Amino acid sequence: MPLPRLTQAQAPLTQAIEVLDEHGERRNTAIPAERPLTVFVDKRELLTLMTLGAAPELLVLGYLRNQRLLERLDDIESITVDWDVNAAAVRTVSGLPDLEARTAQKVVTTGCGQGTVFGGLMDEIDRIELPPPAEARISQRGLYALLEAMRLQESTYKSSGSVHGCALFALGRDTQGVQTAELLHFVEDVGRHNAIDTIAGWMWMQGLDSRGKVFYTTGRLTSEMVIKAAQMGVPIVVSRSGITQMGHALAGQLGMTLFGRAVNRHFLCYSGFERFDAEPAAALERRPLPGD
Amino acid sequence: MPLPRLTQAQAPLTQAIEVLDEHGERRNTAIPAERPLTVFVDKRELLTLMTLGAAPELLVLGYLRNQRLLERLDDIESITVDWDVNAAAVRTVSGLPDLEARTAQKVVTTGCGQGTVFGGLMDEIDRIELPPPAEARISQRGLYALLEAMRLQESTYKSSGSVHGCALFALGRDTQGVQTAELLHFVEDVGRHNAIDTIAGWMWMQGLDSRGKVFYTTGRLTSEMVIKAAQMGVPIVVSRSGITQMGHALAGQLGMTLFGRAVNRHFLCYSGFERFDAEPAAALERRPLPGD
Repeated sequence: MPLPRLTQAQAPLTQAIEVLDEHGERRNTAIPAERPLTVFVDKRELLTLMTLGAAPELLVLGYLRNQRLLERLDDIESITVDWDVNAAAVRTVSGLPDLEARTAQKVVTTGCGQGTVFGGLMDEIDRIELPPPAEARISQRGLYALLEAMRLQESTYKSSGSVHGCALFALGRDTQGVQTAELLHFVEDVGRHNAIDTIAGWMWMQGLDSRGKVFYTTGRLTSEMVIKAAQMGVPIVVSRSGITQMGHALAGQLGMTLFGRAVNRHFLCYSGFERFDAEPAAALERRPLPGD
Repeated sequence: MPLPRLTQAQAPLTQAIEVLDEHGERRNTAIPAERPLTVFVDKRELLTLMTLGAAPELLVLGYLRNQRLLERLDDIESITVDWDVNAAAVRTVSGLPDLEARTAQKVVTTGCGQGTVFGGLMDEIDRIELPPPAEARISQRGLYALLEAMRLQESTYKSSGSVHGCALFALGRDTQGVQTAELLHFVEDVGRHNAIDTIAGWMWMQGLDSRGKVFYTTGRLTSEMVIKAAQMGVPIVVSRSGITQMGHALAGQLGMTLFGRAVNRHFLCYSGFERFDAEPAAALERRPLPGD
């Protein structure tokens, strides 16, 4: 199957500005870039996304996928991003069925406030089946390996803050049979929804099986984060932040395992305990972790 | 002018759930509530907001105001929230002009991701005039007074995390002429856009003059946070978090003063230095502040 042709229109991720600090000193600091990207599907304007611009083509692909505006990868011929005009041109093979109707119903969701999920996503929840606990589980040492990898990951967040990071991990075993976590893909954006959509786009292009995959986000475990992880078929989600009631309720309904407040050796497992192999002793093993 | 009649449909703000921690112990923790609120304007469905539910009537009022779907307070007869059906019924005096047209154009903004601002807000920026620096300025001690008030504020965030808080402050002077900051109103929501909209609704009901007011948010200083503060006529915004490029650019365009990373005695002034009276000595004064 021929993959869609994607441009590689990366843009500068930070901008230097002058700030005044509490000591009355002026100095330079870096802030994350943020640019509008207007998405056109077969020359028809769909919407405008605000993005950091790290991987705009995968963002658009994942957005169309997670909004269920696009069902098959080979319906897409190409995605061409041009930062001179802040536009992403999506060319389809034979158009997208009833795009009009599917973008009509708006549900304004939490996120940091008023993220839009086009109608129908909630209906889908009932149809999603995540891999059973026997086939997709995580141990405490596997979780710690994941958190250590995130701690070492270089990022725009570390240099300028104010962005959300998302990562996809594959669980494995080392020669001693201890669970490992391999970082497959890491992306940041000014919005965490953009970040997860970009990961979804990447997974789709890779044709990855979601079994044994774990999704990490710096953002909160809100309803639409859980929905998007479920759409990607990922049964385990780890967050540095907390959770909201809808996120918790949906995860319970889906049998998804959620970890929050996960930093260094600390975490809370909020749901899906049956996928989690607790190894409390590991919480006490001394490893040199800053902030520990 | 008769004010709109608002119900007081407050709902429980937290829910207790069982979690499993890194020591393998099960315990109870509180998470923030999150519930859909479908907004009907004269029985016509507009959209569904996900909210904590602390002040749903003011949220709906502020949302309609900030989206510029509503121009005059006395166009509204009543807002009735009923949590049994998760609905907010807005009754207008004579309908809202071209509601259809104004909700057509979507711009998906940053926020934590894909918040929607209906079209036309950006066009408004040029027309907004904030009070000049001479009439609206903040001193370093005034800023510290504000941060101290936020530190002492009881909140759902402190009990369960995962919510955003917003507050409106009035600057004043004590008998020694030192600037003070009075907390006028504080609100939290699962989304920071909801929180700022609720503050806007409250300001509108109070008929408050925005001169000498300061807006505090736990969220990032993104483009739409700056736009919404500007729509409220508030010239100074303080955030515990950082800033994005569009937020910075818009604040420059508006002559808005932005402070970020503001905790205890630390802060960065990102823009509008001309409204800020630096008092570096205050940064070194010892006061008992945790984390200081």
